[in-house]
Amino acid sequence: MALIVQKFGGTSVGDIERICNVAEKVKREVDAGNQVIVTVSAMAGITNQMVEYVEQVSSLEDAEAFADYDVVVSSGEQVTSGLLALRLRSLGIPARAWLGWQIPFRTSRTHGKARIEKIETDAIRESMANGRVAVVAGFQGITEDNRITTLGRGGTDTSAVALAAAFGADRCDIYTDVDGVYTADPRIVPRARKLDLVAYEEMLEMASLGAKVLQTRSVEMAMNHGVKVQVLSSFEDKPGTLLVREDEIMEKEQITGIAYSRDEARITLSDVADKPGISAAIFGPLAEANINVDMIVQNVTPDGKATDVTFTVARGDLERAVKVLEDNRDSITFQNMHTDDGVAKLSVIGVGMRSHAGVAQQMFATLAEKNINIIVITTSEIKVSVLIDEEYIELALRALHTAYGLDAVVEKG
Amino acid sequence: MALIVQKFGGTSVGDIERICNVAEKVKREVDAGNQVIVTVSAMAGITNQMVEYVEQVSSLEDAEAFADYDVVVSSGEQVTSGLLALRLRSLGIPARAWLGWQIPFRTSRTHGKARIEKIETDAIRESMANGRVAVVAGFQGITEDNRITTLGRGGTDTSAVALAAAFGADRCDIYTDVDGVYTADPRIVPRARKLDLVAYEEMLEMASLGAKVLQTRSVEMAMNHGVKVQVLSSFEDKPGTLLVREDEIMEKEQITGIAYSRDEARITLSDVADKPGISAAIFGPLAEANINVDMIVQNVTPDGKATDVTFTVARGDLERAVKVLEDNRDSITFQNMHTDDGVAKLSVIGVGMRSHAGVAQQMFATLAEKNINIIVITTSEIKVSVLIDEEYIELALRALHTAYGLDAVVEKG
Repeated sequence: MALIVQKFGGTSVGDIERICNVAEKVKREVDAGNQVIVTVSAMAGITNQMVEYVEQVSSLEDAEAFADYDVVVSSGEQVTSGLLALRLRSLGIPARAWLGWQIPFRTSRTHGKARIEKIETDAIRESMANGRVAVVAGFQGITEDNRITTLGRGGTDTSAVALAAAFGADRCDIYTDVDGVYTADPRIVPRARKLDLVAYEEMLEMASLGAKVLQTRSVEMAMNHGVKVQVLSSFEDKPGTLLVREDEIMEKEQITGIAYSRDEARITLSDVADKPGISAAIFGPLAEANINVDMIVQNVTPDGKATDVTFTVARGDLERAVKVLEDNRDSITFQNMHTDDGVAKLSVIGVGMRSHAGVAQQMFATLAEKNINIIVITTSEIKVSVLIDEEYIELALRALHTAYGLDAVVEKG
Repeated sequence: MALIVQKFGGTSVGDIERICNVAEKVKREVDAGNQVIVTVSAMAGITNQMVEYVEQVSSLEDAEAFADYDVVVSSGEQVTSGLLALRLRSLGIPARAWLGWQIPFRTSRTHGKARIEKIETDAIRESMANGRVAVVAGFQGITEDNRITTLGRGGTDTSAVALAAAFGADRCDIYTDVDGVYTADPRIVPRARKLDLVAYEEMLEMASLGAKVLQTRSVEMAMNHGVKVQVLSSFEDKPGTLLVREDEIMEKEQITGIAYSRDEARITLSDVADKPGISAAIFGPLAEANINVDMIVQNVTPDGKATDVTFTVARGDLERAVKVLEDNRDSITFQNMHTDDGVAKLSVIGVGMRSHAGVAQQMFATLAEKNINIIVITTSEIKVSVLIDEEYIELALRALHTAYGLDAVVEKG
């Protein structure tokens, strides 16, 4: 008898018919002799509706306000957990709903984006020992002083992985509206292939680069606790993609996938005085303003007296970043500032990179062949990222997908 | 400094604008130097939506299913309590939402219609001592083993009165969509008057007779604990109706109000053998089938050998009642059964009846004058009820309202 954690996202429980469909999927695992813990999101659209209500009554100035924000936005998962438990019982499967406070599912006090501290397992274990499927409201926990918290958008992925880790589950199945993780976004690259296996580290890079299949935190947590996560479709009946340790992938491809993000804006400061401490002068004030800086390059000017600094921020932060830099112009001592919010980041990712040389070179050559200019390059052990003009993004994605041999073999009819 | 409990019903918090309006009403009490506990219903329509969802996934066969029913249907009050607390804070009034389990608000295990056992006051008192308005989610509590319960439809009235009793509040203001308790339904009797005072006992009769201003249980509880309840409008700024002890009403009118109920059906069994135990034979099986019987009359036939029995049930129970009686025909030994679901009950109510004679006679005379036939009569110390054809109900209400001198004096322009 295996212990399986199943997670169903907002579109998977989007209406009553779909909740009934989810119950059938749970029933199948139970009928196969497994113990099941299910965790669910709110019905699609409900959490957005709640956030909208909150924003209409409050500007959420103080941290304490976020405690009541969490009371409101956690309600959607309460509803779906209750409905799913009821549906299961109608199918003859004993079940009960569990809210964060009933478990209890302990978190930090950072309302709106709490971190999980400890999941007590006794109460649920006892209920499961009595043959009941546990249907856990996702996304929510409680603080030490019994206030409701939420885990941030997409938090039910993290709830699921944390439950799997706490209960030592044999597998954590994340049911969603796509049937797995792809080599690239199939809406842009028609020949993208579904991956059977992907390494945690790769998934982490993909998740943080905008492949919105899993919340980044959930991947981190799965990696740290060795949780065997499967991403699969709620609407089709076939295996999905399994997240595994790098050493469990026997034959590593050079590149596993290509991710992109359009949420990028570039800032270039030119003729910055080239003296020690200049990086701190630029990036310190930005960090204080809570603006995340991503890619950074610095080039010395031909005369060697000044330097040009280019970096990227999220597009929504550009305006604030410019203001912060202008306010600190005296300490930074730059001559000109250029900005561009028409850029995008493209990344090739693969643990195979560690053992294959020439991955970056292949990327640069392919882009050059298509006359696509590279603005910034950054690399890590398992990733090469470039910043390019946004208008080339589809072309670049498809060209690289072919160049790295990722294209699906089209079957002949 | 007084302690005020305020309750706002579903239409009073029906949308964001109304929630903001409610916050202003709370603020006014706080600005007047009072301590405030607010309790709120779900936004109008939400609880019905939740019940509908539940009925789509489950037939609610077993008692355990109602525990998850309560998880679902209690969510609406969670949302409004959070939103109102947030709105208050935006107005500069420190506040926080309290859910049933956080208080805790202890109830019996009768999910769906739980009885209140004990409200712990320590946590809320401490929070109020720190200057925070307590915004309590109405309608909900928890059992000893930490499962959510709900108090039945209209339960937030009972939450409010119970909070007022537990905290020894100076007043319990029930804000609703009418501006008080009337001598009769103003939609039928244009000259109905709003009452300034009404005795608990009178209100109890009116509530159970279909004047749906307050949940009956809340009136009972207010009477038992001497809670000073005021019913007033959320949408107008004027005093409402105060519920008081009978001895606090100095000048008692003969009749305080006239209530009616259309939810009535009549059953007559004729030629029932007139022998001991026949009432038990009729009403025992109905009670077992959970069918409430209201008015009962029994007349012996002219020859003295048999008897006719007439009684009323709720209209929705008529079909089931007929089946139960047919199934027990042998033990009851009746000849014929006649039923009529076109009847209505009309009641004149007033504690003044105790000291005024002729109230019933006045009623019979007035109805006779209008040629309205009385089918059944029942009386209590402070009430006379008659069953009449439903089609005469408006005519009868207006005639009695005038006859008892209840008509409002129309002001001359």
